[in-house]
Amino acid sequence: MSVQVAVIMGSKSDWETMKHACEVLEELEIPYEKKVVSAHRTPDLMFQFAEEAAERGIRVIIAGAGGAAHLPGMVAAKTILPVIGVPVQSKALNGLDSLLSIVQMPGGIPVATVAIGKAGAVNAGLLAAQIIGAFDPEVQRRAQNRRDAIRDEVLEGSDDL
Amino acid sequence: MSVQVAVIMGSKSDWETMKHACEVLEELEIPYEKKVVSAHRTPDLMFQFAEEAAERGIRVIIAGAGGAAHLPGMVAAKTILPVIGVPVQSKALNGLDSLLSIVQMPGGIPVATVAIGKAGAVNAGLLAAQIIGAFDPEVQRRAQNRRDAIRDEVLEGSDDL
Amino acid sequence: MSVQVAVIMGSKSDWETMKHACEVLEELEIPYEKKVVSAHRTPDLMFQFAEEAAERGIRVIIAGAGGAAHLPGMVAAKTILPVIGVPVQSKALNGLDSLLSIVQMPGGIPVATVAIGKAGAVNAGLLAAQIIGAFDPEVQRRAQNRRDAIRDEVLEGSDDL
Amino acid sequence: MSVQVAVIMGSKSDWETMKHACEVLEELEIPYEKKVVSAHRTPDLMFQFAEEAAERGIRVIIAGAGGAAHLPGMVAAKTILPVIGVPVQSKALNGLDSLLSIVQMPGGIPVATVAIGKAGAVNAGLLAAQIIGAFDPEVQRRAQNRRDAIRDEVLEGSDDL
Amino acid sequence: MSVQVAVIMGSKSDWETMKHACEVLEELEIPYEKKVVSAHRTPDLMFQFAEEAAERGIRVIIAGAGGAAHLPGMVAAKTILPVIGVPVQSKALNGLDSLLSIVQMPGGIPVATVAIGKAGAVNAGLLAAQIIGAFDPEVQRRAQNRRDAIRDEVLEGSDDL
Amino acid sequence: MSVQVAVIMGSKSDWETMKHACEVLEELEIPYEKKVVSAHRTPDLMFQFAEEAAERGIRVIIAGAGGAAHLPGMVAAKTILPVIGVPVQSKALNGLDSLLSIVQMPGGIPVATVAIGKAGAVNAGLLAAQIIGAFDPEVQRRAQNRRDAIRDEVLEGSDDL
Amino acid sequence: MSVQVAVIMGSKSDWETMKHACEVLEELEIPYEKKVVSAHRTPDLMFQFAEEAAERGIRVIIAGAGGAAHLPGMVAAKTILPVIGVPVQSKALNGLDSLLSIVQMPGGIPVATVAIGKAGAVNAGLLAAQIIGAFDPEVQRRAQNRRDAIRDEVLEGSDDL
Amino acid sequence: MSVQVAVIMGSKSDWETMKHACEVLEELEIPYEKKVVSAHRTPDLMFQFAEEAAERGIRVIIAGAGGAAHLPGMVAAKTILPVIGVPVQSKALNGLDSLLSIVQMPGGIPVATVAIGKAGAVNAGLLAAQIIGAFDPEVQRRAQNRRDAIRDEVLEGSDDL
Repeated sequence: MSVQVAVIMGSKSDWETMKHACEVLEELEIPYEKKVVSAHRTPDLMFQFAEEAAERGIRVIIAGAGGAAHLPGMVAAKTILPVIGVPVQSKALNGLDSLLSIVQMPGGIPVATVAIGKAGAVNAGLLAAQIIGAFDPEVQRRAQNRRDAIRDEVLEGSDDL
Repeated sequence: MSVQVAVIMGSKSDWETMKHACEVLEELEIPYEKKVVSAHRTPDLMFQFAEEAAERGIRVIIAGAGGAAHLPGMVAAKTILPVIGVPVQSKALNGLDSLLSIVQMPGGIPVATVAIGKAGAVNAGLLAAQIIGAFDPEVQRRAQNRRDAIRDEVLEGSDDL
Repeated sequence: MSVQVAVIMGSKSDWETMKHACEVLEELEIPYEKKVVSAHRTPDLMFQFAEEAAERGIRVIIAGAGGAAHLPGMVAAKTILPVIGVPVQSKALNGLDSLLSIVQMPGGIPVATVAIGKAGAVNAGLLAAQIIGAFDPEVQRRAQNRRDAIRDEVLEGSDDL
Repeated sequence: MSVQVAVIMGSKSDWETMKHACEVLEELEIPYEKKVVSAHRTPDLMFQFAEEAAERGIRVIIAGAGGAAHLPGMVAAKTILPVIGVPVQSKALNGLDSLLSIVQMPGGIPVATVAIGKAGAVNAGLLAAQIIGAFDPEVQRRAQNRRDAIRDEVLEGSDDL
Repeated sequence: MSVQVAVIMGSKSDWETMKHACEVLEELEIPYEKKVVSAHRTPDLMFQFAEEAAERGIRVIIAGAGGAAHLPGMVAAKTILPVIGVPVQSKALNGLDSLLSIVQMPGGIPVATVAIGKAGAVNAGLLAAQIIGAFDPEVQRRAQNRRDAIRDEVLEGSDDL
Repeated sequence: MSVQVAVIMGSKSDWETMKHACEVLEELEIPYEKKVVSAHRTPDLMFQFAEEAAERGIRVIIAGAGGAAHLPGMVAAKTILPVIGVPVQSKALNGLDSLLSIVQMPGGIPVATVAIGKAGAVNAGLLAAQIIGAFDPEVQRRAQNRRDAIRDEVLEGSDDL
Repeated sequence: MSVQVAVIMGSKSDWETMKHACEVLEELEIPYEKKVVSAHRTPDLMFQFAEEAAERGIRVIIAGAGGAAHLPGMVAAKTILPVIGVPVQSKALNGLDSLLSIVQMPGGIPVATVAIGKAGAVNAGLLAAQIIGAFDPEVQRRAQNRRDAIRDEVLEGSDDL
Repeated sequence: MSVQVAVIMGSKSDWETMKHACEVLEELEIPYEKKVVSAHRTPDLMFQFAEEAAERGIRVIIAGAGGAAHLPGMVAAKTILPVIGVPVQSKALNGLDSLLSIVQMPGGIPVATVAIGKAGAVNAGLLAAQIIGAFDPEVQRRAQNRRDAIRDEVLEGSDDL
């Protein structure tokens, strides 16, 4: 099966966060690719990547970036595919700058924004799976199973404090 | 064609914001339903709605709420469908509370969060369309056309300041 | 004497904070139970817990959660008992997200919110005791004694800097 | 029946907010008193009020204040009764200062904080009722009825958008 | 003399703010052009504009945008000319989102950020003049004269309160 | 010479910050006393302290506290002496709560607020000295000398980077 | 009696706020002067003013400014007199920028900061009076009388809601 | 070639941040000087430095400071040269105070503000180079080369995650 999800990030240092999205995609057996694509340092690559993503068969793009995080929004401006933005935790402002730079998009170009940092990266992977799952019962079933397993784990350990 | 998108909101006063999501869905000819479902005042209805949405054929849920905005996240916890959260602008804190209550979900249950207020509602409609469009070329074409039309409008008026 | 207070939390990792509420309840000899109940991962358990709490004789519920903290507010929506919310300190935003998600409830469903983190958990235990104490002179006396002891400790050490 | 709840506020200008707490108490037929007591302008009256509240038979104190809002916390320091704090919306910082000044109490002296402004005042009245209701089935029944009525209202109007 | 400064903005609604930059440039007799160029709605135009600016003889670019303001940073990524970013005041978050989206650029691609709103736009015009003036004594003299005139105005009116 | 400045703090843990105020006072040979006085845990002591300060010959009170910091404002409400408030850095919110709780006093009762943490404590000591120095040339001279010495230190080391 | 307090402000538009400081000084019969002195537009005047203030017999300087408010801190750097800083409410950020620019002074140069806006200006006048009053029993008596009158006013109207 | 850029900072402790600006200037072979100049501790030196900078042949001033950061704005008020402000990360508020104190300048005196901390310092060096490069093709070429090298580095490592 061809690549369904592309996971891109603005810098190698974002991998520590973004790997959690990839782990979820692997766990749910969704073919994906990962790549460093910087809005500011490789703008032409970014545009080329975004322009070609749909015709390459990709269904969902996950883009992570920190600080003045322009990658998710700019990729979203250049593709009609759904783009999920992960605000990477920044040094000085703890990711509040990343979050606002990603989520506060003007009407016309949406970015599906998730939480700052690791939890957001995990959820980006899950959201991609749920989007695909809305049209692919097998993927949906796998996402549901993962969720049920976590629920059972909480239920079993609920009184062990 | 059956309802593809459900637009729900925590209170009637959210309609002023959420109607912009509905307008986009109408414009793109995506069948949708709209409903007030309050996490806090009608929690059982919310759970029932969320539990039944997938089997009713809905593909994407758009949920708007303000303040301690629990509706998008709680619906997301009860359905495997992708849920888009719209932070409605609140009175005292201008929607910063709505935004953080919606976007900062723990790992396991994603909410695709968009911008605070009207721009976010417009983008929720577009994001739903782009998600469906990733699997339905006709919807994707319509979303692309809307985008091209807006681009042309900007290009034509670019020097009229 | 039957359980008077239930201390619940969204995740095992919240125990490090919420144990301080339990310590206070033990110190004041108020029977309590403690449990992990996740709004997002075990929503049905949460609803069942909240629905049954009053008839089980519980007087006050203490609920701790972090990030997009929906547990206190959702439990409050499903019970007529007073619910005390403890914002657990989150990683990126230091608990500001937890605080706003808990305290900014819409009119109709109150959550009695205390401070972020350990001080809040201690105070949740004390607030539960003071609520019970308003109707049980013995519990009130114990709460007052604890307070007097702390006052005396401060007074005695006031000049030892 | 004697006064059960005292509603105090730091300034006459807070009445516009705090009257919503009083309206709820009236609606639920809970005897209450209301008074301007300023932490900064009438500190001695504040201390006297707080010291005498319990012996006067009051069960719950609701205190509203804005800006550097010290009234709820200082009253809480002088009484063993549960104190509910309402952050009144301030001019420059929209009540964020009021909220943090009230909720971030140190371990030892809890204040049950509700939302900024009108919603918070409504909820302060309800929280007082729910606290009393945990020990008085009739009051609890009235609080539950009010809640059910609001739920039904939402349910009936749910599709009228 | 050829155009020295380009004033671009993400939307026509930004003109109300950005016209203040143009007024300063006119006052200081610096040839400029103005244009709507949207990072999100006309990304290709934006790239073309940025790529050609230097060879067209432009010395400084002023770019204004609001919300998730990507225009200044993306133009800066595509030109070696100095780019001045003006955070336009946004509706919900008053321009804090605009400011952080513009100023928090990663190392490698600077944006010279000025204040939110009108004062920032005025200063963008002045900063462009001062940059040019550092290499053109006549422009520097004009900028200095404007400053001296304002100083004298303050001095003369200093006691008229 | 009798005690001129009283340095009080809400808790022993504030000493780590407040000792810097004391060091400045010692360096400038201004007689002072230091004491733990808690607004919340020893409210009566606080009132007694504040009521007696002026008649005991104290000229300036320095009060440090963190979180919902009520000590400076409540002492100010009970004395006509100038009160300097030092916001101690809090755990979750880094002292922003302390700062707002101290500085946002309502019209009628001023608190002279300084910076969060150590720099603020140093400056509290200096401000007390400058206040006394405005009426005591010898103290003013000492404060000026300290300032000159620091200036000379900066000037000498200015190029040693 | 010679001028005791100087009230300066960065711009004529600050008068709307700063007049409240002047009204208090008039009410308490403290001789004062008022003047526009801009840190940014008239820096030399500012330095001259600050250098001469002490020898002109001034005891306390009140300085109001908004935005990147440098006036209070820079005047404080050039005089050994106590300087009170009033953060004027700014347009975009509601005075949070003014507050932080004034209060967060580095160790060595204190500014006695009061609340944002009108309440802060009133308190600046009172703080100046209390500082002078700590060394002038007549001024202290007048400040105390004003305070007592306000207290009595609150006490009398306390139950009129 | 004479000194083109002056790098100043408010305190020796800022060197850890500001050295990154100097490294860029060295890398691009732009002659520069560096110096500690404190707005608050050496105000006269600051004024003298700013007054003489233009006639000494300097083209751009880079000024870094933290907290209530007045250095960039005050230097800008005393020179017609372009001034770049670097907000140094502060202890309590993580540089948000530094950023607002630098960027929110009133209309009339611009400061070209860059990001908080190290990334900002790097970009200050680059911005100075780009400003000079707009009038000096050789410097522009070097700045472009540095940028191209970084782009190539990202492109080569793009898939190595």
